[in-house]
Amino acid sequence: MLVDGIARRTIWTEGDRVRIIDQTALPHRFIVETLGSIADACRAIASMQVRGAPLIGVAGAFGLALGLRDDASDAAATEHRRKLVATRPTAVNLRWAVDHAWAKVEKFPVGERAAMAWRVAEAMAEADVAACMKLAEHGFTALEKHARGKRLNVLTHCNAGWLATIDWGTALAPVYLAAQRGYDVHVFVDETRPRNQGASLTAWELGHAGIPHAVIVDNAGGLLMMRGEVDACIVGTDRTTKSGDVCNKIGTYLKALAAKDNDVPFYVALPTSSFDPQIERGMDIPIEDRSEDEVHWLSGIDAQGQPARLRVTPLGTRALNPGFDITPASLITGYVTEVGVLSAPDLATALIP
Amino acid sequence: MLVDGIARRTIWTEGDRVRIIDQTALPHRFIVETLGSIADACRAIASMQVRGAPLIGVAGAFGLALGLRDDASDAAATEHRRKLVATRPTAVNLRWAVDHAWAKVEKFPVGERAAMAWRVAEAMAEADVAACMKLAEHGFTALEKHARGKRLNVLTHCNAGWLATIDWGTALAPVYLAAQRGYDVHVFVDETRPRNQGASLTAWELGHAGIPHAVIVDNAGGLLMMRGEVDACIVGTDRTTKSGDVCNKIGTYLKALAAKDNDVPFYVALPTSSFDPQIERGMDIPIEDRSEDEVHWLSGIDAQGQPARLRVTPLGTRALNPGFDITPASLITGYVTEVGVLSAPDLATALIP
Repeated sequence: MLVDGIARRTIWTEGDRVRIIDQTALPHRFIVETLGSIADACRAIASMQVRGAPLIGVAGAFGLALGLRDDASDAAATEHRRKLVATRPTAVNLRWAVDHAWAKVEKFPVGERAAMAWRVAEAMAEADVAACMKLAEHGFTALEKHARGKRLNVLTHCNAGWLATIDWGTALAPVYLAAQRGYDVHVFVDETRPRNQGASLTAWELGHAGIPHAVIVDNAGGLLMMRGEVDACIVGTDRTTKSGDVCNKIGTYLKALAAKDNDVPFYVALPTSSFDPQIERGMDIPIEDRSEDEVHWLSGIDAQGQPARLRVTPLGTRALNPGFDITPASLITGYVTEVGVLSAPDLATALIP
Repeated sequence: MLVDGIARRTIWTEGDRVRIIDQTALPHRFIVETLGSIADACRAIASMQVRGAPLIGVAGAFGLALGLRDDASDAAATEHRRKLVATRPTAVNLRWAVDHAWAKVEKFPVGERAAMAWRVAEAMAEADVAACMKLAEHGFTALEKHARGKRLNVLTHCNAGWLATIDWGTALAPVYLAAQRGYDVHVFVDETRPRNQGASLTAWELGHAGIPHAVIVDNAGGLLMMRGEVDACIVGTDRTTKSGDVCNKIGTYLKALAAKDNDVPFYVALPTSSFDPQIERGMDIPIEDRSEDEVHWLSGIDAQGQPARLRVTPLGTRALNPGFDITPASLITGYVTEVGVLSAPDLATALIP
């Protein structure tokens, strides 16, 4: 997608190096970083320079390739995979991507594994773009039904845009497509505390794409739905269970409740890589408890435009910071997948190969 | 309530002067200001050094007394009242308090009015404390039923503590009483974006009262309720309609939905002064659209402990900032009032004199 008019992806290769957009610097600074080692890749994933399920999957695969470049023995590969997966324990498709890449290369001689893993990671990136474009088409078909004439007011939570993937995004892909197809799209962007991915990343993406939007506090969506100002909600997912329960950024569940209460359709953009048929119920998914400091301290720019942090809570106050919540399948209108818009009972049949 | 071990109120008299806690400096600095004139009182109310419906009412009454000290003629009194009410035009309670105080003193000779108004303001402060103590008793009886043994986990939104009143508070009054009566109370404090009254004021209050608490982002309460970690929710209200719909700080509705979905009792602390039988339905209450800047910019302290502001959203991004939402009566377990815990159909009978 466009950044200052230039088409960009979130991760790409230049020679034998991996390049990423440092998403921790957004929306105030656009910085490209280089990943030259598995340690760089782990750090980039753990510090959320790259974030979003599909993107961290691909970053994990590139991390494995970089690790194998140092040591491609079976023993080293086990350690590389352990390190990578440990960076984001809740992220099912990080594990999936790293395991998938390793399965593709382990049968090769040690000396060929690194180069092979590199090609696998590149192919995964391309496959992700193709998958997002399919989500865009199916999601557009779903959203189009809820438009009022050519006007479409969408609410989204967190960032499931192109920054969370390689390009296009999952939840925002249908929004971009609707705009391209002449719809007058407007997006209500939940700021998404504590890390403000909506206020920073989603607002930044939409701004560069020229799509009208308004940032709202996470508290506001319920009132907007009650007043009939939202035609549809669409969000991403970090992991969706066999029964269709959706694990996504903390706060998703509250918006799904409000959507149900006000007959607003609530869609989940679900790339197959985020579907986890191993887990039956959402409450069986372990929820990552993140650092208290994400609640106490906020990042932004000061009045002079310089990067700054400030503390909101009184010194000594404790905070609790669960990173995700569970939205029960019963609250979800449809799952936007590569193969179409599915209902919960159809997920397993349609998505398990 | 206690501040650094000293019993405090939000507003009190010392000789012929009025003293207030400057709430704009909280939670990072504790500053006492003096109100020596009606101009001081107007400034304190307008700048939100004093905030919370009961407190600004009493501050308005003291402001009238200070004004009458300068000039207690009928003409001057009209001007004093106009100035005071104009500081917070939507605060129904401010107008009520100023009109009430004037009604009590206008029949007295001009030379006696200032002293009389002073006594009326002092009596209003005492009456507010007495009302909050009644809410404390009735709310405690309600909450006690949901304790697990002596353990009680309460979730609250915004600040309806003693800082919003003269002492004790409304929603937090039962919490303070439960702690005094030996309950092992723990409070989940919604940070309450955009102005963070939970993260700043409620956390500060509870910290000084020695009540264990954790600040959570507004997104987190749903998950906590789903996991069975919340025994009861209790919140305040800015205005409650005849049918029991509750207008309160934006985001209250989402917590009430989550409480209903998880069979968590949801109480509203409702002083009679916030009950508005003139309005039948919540959606008929005009919702104040507040400044975009409250979403874009946050206040706190920097790493050196100095007061600071920072911007979260990209420059040029628009925000939308409705200040309140409506929680339908159907989501509310009970209304904690001075006369007991009521259900919605009983409000009008019990609260209309």
